[in-house]
Amino acid sequence: MYLETINNKEMLQPELKLRRDKIRALMAQRDIDAALITCNVNLIYTYGRVVSGYLYLPLNAPAHLFIKRPNNIEGEHIHPIRKPEQLPDLLKECGLPIPAKLMLEGDELPFTEHNRLAACFPETEVVSCGTALIRQARSVKTAIELEMFRRSEIAHAKAYDQIPSVYRPGMTDRELCIEIERLMRLEGCLGIFRVFGQSMEIFMGSLLSGDNAAAPSPYDFALGGEGMDPSLPGSVNGAPLQEGQSVMVDMGGNFYGYMGDMSRVFSIGKLPENAYAAHQTCLEIQEAVAAMAKPGTVCEDLYNTAIDIVTKAGFADYFMGVGQKAKFIGHGIGLEINEMPVLAPRMRQELEPGMVFALEPKIVLPNVGPVGIENSWAVTSDGLDKLTLCKEEIIEL
Amino acid sequence: MYLETINNKEMLQPELKLRRDKIRALMAQRDIDAALITCNVNLIYTYGRVVSGYLYLPLNAPAHLFIKRPNNIEGEHIHPIRKPEQLPDLLKECGLPIPAKLMLEGDELPFTEHNRLAACFPETEVVSCGTALIRQARSVKTAIELEMFRRSEIAHAKAYDQIPSVYRPGMTDRELCIEIERLMRLEGCLGIFRVFGQSMEIFMGSLLSGDNAAAPSPYDFALGGEGMDPSLPGSVNGAPLQEGQSVMVDMGGNFYGYMGDMSRVFSIGKLPENAYAAHQTCLEIQEAVAAMAKPGTVCEDLYNTAIDIVTKAGFADYFMGVGQKAKFIGHGIGLEINEMPVLAPRMRQELEPGMVFALEPKIVLPNVGPVGIENSWAVTSDGLDKLTLCKEEIIEL
Repeated sequence: MYLETINNKEMLQPELKLRRDKIRALMAQRDIDAALITCNVNLIYTYGRVVSGYLYLPLNAPAHLFIKRPNNIEGEHIHPIRKPEQLPDLLKECGLPIPAKLMLEGDELPFTEHNRLAACFPETEVVSCGTALIRQARSVKTAIELEMFRRSEIAHAKAYDQIPSVYRPGMTDRELCIEIERLMRLEGCLGIFRVFGQSMEIFMGSLLSGDNAAAPSPYDFALGGEGMDPSLPGSVNGAPLQEGQSVMVDMGGNFYGYMGDMSRVFSIGKLPENAYAAHQTCLEIQEAVAAMAKPGTVCEDLYNTAIDIVTKAGFADYFMGVGQKAKFIGHGIGLEINEMPVLAPRMRQELEPGMVFALEPKIVLPNVGPVGIENSWAVTSDGLDKLTLCKEEIIEL
Repeated sequence: MYLETINNKEMLQPELKLRRDKIRALMAQRDIDAALITCNVNLIYTYGRVVSGYLYLPLNAPAHLFIKRPNNIEGEHIHPIRKPEQLPDLLKECGLPIPAKLMLEGDELPFTEHNRLAACFPETEVVSCGTALIRQARSVKTAIELEMFRRSEIAHAKAYDQIPSVYRPGMTDRELCIEIERLMRLEGCLGIFRVFGQSMEIFMGSLLSGDNAAAPSPYDFALGGEGMDPSLPGSVNGAPLQEGQSVMVDMGGNFYGYMGDMSRVFSIGKLPENAYAAHQTCLEIQEAVAAMAKPGTVCEDLYNTAIDIVTKAGFADYFMGVGQKAKFIGHGIGLEINEMPVLAPRMRQELEPGMVFALEPKIVLPNVGPVGIENSWAVTSDGLDKLTLCKEEIIEL
């Protein structure tokens, strides 16, 4: 369906124009008269697909695509290019002036690549705020982006619904994880897990059971896990799933480029009573935060609400990890898993209609494992809309 | 097994020292007196695992790890850190001088992150050649790295051997690909596919059948494929596998951090005669290149040998793609899929013992699909050693 939209020029072009104009509005505030966009997620956002090349986005003229590869894309305002040093001449041929103030993607472009692009425009003031500015534009989703999320999360839920059918007693955490990955792929998950920040890596998502959930992570994800190899910490460690352990499944729901996020908890047999109580506390946090969140709500206030509830319930020491804790309860999602806003201390940002975020109150119990919930939510005009519709209780395998 | 090695301090420390000394030798040539290493693959190389933090590598003193996360790593020369601005004070506490010339990973660090690190050392000459220099060190593997490759490729071959067992008539290319991904994961593949260069993305590898193999790629991989979504071009496009089509499987063999590379061709029923002839031509190229390659052989000469053979055989127009062609026949492999050396025109680099590369002569035939071969090879003292031992003929499914 998305392919139909994205390949249908009549449907796609107004959508891309809308996204580019959101970027242009932010550029105008800073007197930036052109942007050069070349990182994959930003090309998906502004051009609708990954190419190797440069989207040149002037403030007051149509965007031009200068493309290296693939070699089969043609159209108005699309021009072949071999190397960025050709850009000034190509702009001239297109009748476009050399920009006075040009924006580059400074938080994503490698240092040498950034400087190579800047050197192509020796007379231009180059500013490196492109990443931050485009991420700000991306934080409020368009109607079509929201629709992509909705469709993704229907498929995501369909995969999760089948999880009990692939469990076999005696499995390791790794074996169950592999079967769930397959379910996700069969429902259309693209597999790739895009994260902002060059040092955050994960395969398709994570599965955490028992005390492996308390293994601290080098990454800024909610929970860690030892992983199977020191070259890729996180998620399963190959331990057999044991009676009385919880299993938290947290797979990235990237079906059409958008990273839906959902966690659900399963149990091997019955869990101790406090696990169900802790799970219920997370559901209460979710309910309280969802009831409170609407346009204008301050992100930090949502975090503090969660901390109040979990503290009163007596689970604060186990909230968002033990020993090493994640200092957030939710995060924006979009083309990457970690977009704005972030529901964390000192985040004074206010929610806006069209923002999409994952809310993930989680508690890690010694000898049991992780419980809690994660859903993806869209901010509407007067509240939140839940995108991930899947049973929320602990499901016994 | 690798976990045993890597978690065994006695075995691991001399190996890491060896790798760091390879980097130090290159630093000495350029009068660099310290390196600050923070990108994941380089941390795996120099410290043996991914952490969030900084490995500070002085030319003439032991390395120190300044670590943000995880919070459970302790030891000699390991110090906690919150932010890079603490580095000068922490160096002082360790009795280390502020470096006169400091090397950063300029081709990998984002522009803003690079500049933030450089600003921590206002009196220091900062050079950005770290990526290139460490990649040069990494291009010649240690004995333990070669062993990791060998073990990886045994598992890789074991997964490929099972491919005929998961094929069912009527499958789409995507469905077959998913079953092969599962085989790879069950044999221990970590899944993650590391590529140098921020714009190259792929899930676990690719499966190409029929004319989808001719779909040009935005990436610098050997072949393309349309992909399932414009946000992730490459590999399968969801088409049913048809009688008379070839199927090339090219999955990344990352079992212990090292990206083994192997392609094998299968057929749905019988292929036209010219497909077997083209496949044979690729095997002949492989044989000729493998016979010729030894320490001192110039990479470009290997490429030219391949072109000569494929031209004489009459398949030059279909070699390494049609329409858009890859301009190489092989590439170094290691912690990333695209290391040095590259077997390509104008590459005057000479092979050295310990280099590991993938050699992948491939021909794409209209209406049939891709044929050819890809194996991973290690350069020995007097020739090559094949790491990927798996049947090389076209296997009928």
